[in-house]
Amino acid sequence: LDADAMRAATERQAILTKPAGSLGVLEETSVRLAGITGVCPPAVPQKVAVAVFAADHGVVASGVTPWPQSVTTSMVENFRAGGAAVNVLSRQIGADVAVIDMGMVDDVKEDAVVRVRKVRAGTADLAVGAAMTRDEALEALGTGIRIAEELADAGYELIATGDMGIGNTTASACLIAHFTGRPAAEITGRGTGIDDAMLTHKTAIVAQAVARIAEGAGPVDVLAEVGGLEHAGIAGLILGAAARRVPVVLDGVIVSSAALLAQAFSPDAVDHCLAGHRSVEPGHTAALGALGLRPLVDLDLRLGEGSGAVLAVPLIRSAAAVLAEMATFADAGIDAGTDA
Amino acid sequence: LDADAMRAATERQAILTKPAGSLGVLEETSVRLAGITGVCPPAVPQKVAVAVFAADHGVVASGVTPWPQSVTTSMVENFRAGGAAVNVLSRQIGADVAVIDMGMVDDVKEDAVVRVRKVRAGTADLAVGAAMTRDEALEALGTGIRIAEELADAGYELIATGDMGIGNTTASACLIAHFTGRPAAEITGRGTGIDDAMLTHKTAIVAQAVARIAEGAGPVDVLAEVGGLEHAGIAGLILGAAARRVPVVLDGVIVSSAALLAQAFSPDAVDHCLAGHRSVEPGHTAALGALGLRPLVDLDLRLGEGSGAVLAVPLIRSAAAVLAEMATFADAGIDAGTDA
Repeated sequence: LDADAMRAATERQAILTKPAGSLGVLEETSVRLAGITGVCPPAVPQKVAVAVFAADHGVVASGVTPWPQSVTTSMVENFRAGGAAVNVLSRQIGADVAVIDMGMVDDVKEDAVVRVRKVRAGTADLAVGAAMTRDEALEALGTGIRIAEELADAGYELIATGDMGIGNTTASACLIAHFTGRPAAEITGRGTGIDDAMLTHKTAIVAQAVARIAEGAGPVDVLAEVGGLEHAGIAGLILGAAARRVPVVLDGVIVSSAALLAQAFSPDAVDHCLAGHRSVEPGHTAALGALGLRPLVDLDLRLGEGSGAVLAVPLIRSAAAVLAEMATFADAGIDAGTDA
Repeated sequence: LDADAMRAATERQAILTKPAGSLGVLEETSVRLAGITGVCPPAVPQKVAVAVFAADHGVVASGVTPWPQSVTTSMVENFRAGGAAVNVLSRQIGADVAVIDMGMVDDVKEDAVVRVRKVRAGTADLAVGAAMTRDEALEALGTGIRIAEELADAGYELIATGDMGIGNTTASACLIAHFTGRPAAEITGRGTGIDDAMLTHKTAIVAQAVARIAEGAGPVDVLAEVGGLEHAGIAGLILGAAARRVPVVLDGVIVSSAALLAQAFSPDAVDHCLAGHRSVEPGHTAALGALGLRPLVDLDLRLGEGSGAVLAVPLIRSAAAVLAEMATFADAGIDAGTDA
C-alpha cells in the first residue's frame, strides 16, 4: 500500500465539512483505496468487473450437499443468460459479469460472458485423498493471475469476486480450518442449506481432510490437498490484481477462504482487498478475522456468486466520491470548531 | 401494508434461482416494499428524494455542543452549493436533495434546493422549559405531511430522510428516552463529538427534560416539551408518505427519534419505513429496537444529513430488482433440490 497516498487521504478527510471520523468505515475505505491505487483522492471506480470462478468438486460424491452436481452447469448457463442474482445485482451497478470455468465437470461454451480455462474436469474427492495435483494447483493459480491481468488490461478499475460450484463450501471449510487453526466443527456450515445429519457428516469430512495436511505444508500443498479449482483461481486473481494495484472486493465464505490462501503467499495482496460482506456461514467470520478485514455489508446473505461483493460496490464508490468531491471547511467558510 | 402483495412476494422469492432465503435481508426488504407499495414485484425505485429537515435548538444556549449555532446555516448553504456529504452521496445514486427550513434561527433563501417553511426561529431551550407550543408542534407536523405530499405529487418513488441542526441530538435523546423508557444515561451520546464533561452535562439536561413530561402525555405534548422542529417535520413526513404508499428510508438517531414520534401516532406508518443504517449514537440502537426495524447499513456513521439513508438506497433498489428480474428455477430448467 502507498503510505503517502494514505496519509494524504487521512489528512483530507479531516478537513472535509463533517465532524472528524463521522463517516466511519467509509473514511477508512477511502484511505485504503488511496493506498491500493497509490492516488489521492482515488478515482471513483466506474468500470467494474465481477469475476465468478466456477468449478466442480469430487467431494459431492461423499454426500455433502443435497444439490446435484449438474446445478453448477445450470447456474453457469443462468449467468450466461443473465437470470441469476449476480446478473441482476451487477446490472444495478453497471458492472460486467465474467464467468471463468476453472474446472467444471461439464463442458461449456466460450463466449463474451464465459471464459473456458478448465484445468481439470472437477477435483478428486477430498474426503478420500488429495483434491488435485500440485501441478494442477499451480496451473489454476496461474490462470487466476492471468484473469486479473486480462481484466486490468481491459480497463477495469475494481474487481468483485464470486464463485459457483456445488460442494465448494466443504473445500472452503477445509481451507479456513487449516489457515485459522480453528476446529472443523466451528467452521463448517450449512452451505446452501443442509440438515443436521448431513452437517455432522460434512464436518467429519472436513476434520479428516484437514488432519491429512502435513506439518509445515506450503500454500500449494494445502490447495492441492483440500482446495478447489475456483479457490485457486480466486487466490491467483487476488495476487494478480494486487500487482496491478486494482482493488478486489471479496465476496463470502468461498472467496474469503481463497483469500486466506492468497494471504499465505502474500499478506500484502490481501491489503489490496476490501471485504464486501459477512455471510451467515460460520467460517466466514473466522476468515475475515484472520484476513483483518471488516465487511461493508452484513445482511445475512449466503448465496455466493459474488452477490455480497457486488452489493458493496456502491458503498466503495461512495467512499471514494466523498473524499474527492466534498467541500472543505475552508471552502464552506466554517470554523471547524473545538472538537474536530 | 398490503398482505396480498407481501404473500405474492414471499412466494416469488421461493422460486427464484437461489437457495431459499439465501439473500437474507434483501428478500425481507423486497417483501416489505411489496407491502408498502401494494404491488408485486414492486418497482425498482429510480426517482429518489432526500428530504433534509433543518432547524435550530434553544438548548444550544445550555452548552450541549462545542459547535456554534451558525453552523446550521453554514451547512444548509453547503447543501445548497452541493458540497456536503449528503450531496456527494445523493449524486452517486441520482437522488435529488430537498432541504426544508423548519425553523432555523437565520433566514435563508428559497430556491430549487431549499424550501423555507419556518415555523419559528429555533426552539426555546428545552433545558429550562417547553421547546415549543402545542400549536407550533402541530403546525410543524402538518408541514412535514405537506412535504410528503409534494414529493409524492412530484413522482418520487422513495424518500430518504435527513436532518441538520446543531444541538439536535439532545432533543433526539429526550424523545428516545421518553418513548423507549430507557434512562438518559443509556441513550445520550456524543453527537458530533463532545468530551466527557459535556456529555455528563448533556445527559443531566436530557434526564431533567424527560422528567417534566406529564404521565399520559400524548405525542404532541411530548414533541412540544422536548422535541425539535425538524423532528416534527420528519414525523409528519413519515405519516404523509405512508398515506401515499411511498417508502421512507430512515437515517440515524435524529430521524429515528422522529420515527418514534410518528409511531406514537400510527405504528402502521412506521411499517412503511425502512431503516437505512445504524449510527454509533447509543440511542439509535434503542430506537431501532422500539421501531422493530433492522438497519441495512452498519458502518459506524454518525454524520446525519441523511447520509446513512442515502447509502442504503442501492441496497433497496437491488432488493426490488432481484424480485423483479431474477430467473425462476423453471426458467433455468433447474430442479430446486430437496432443501428448497
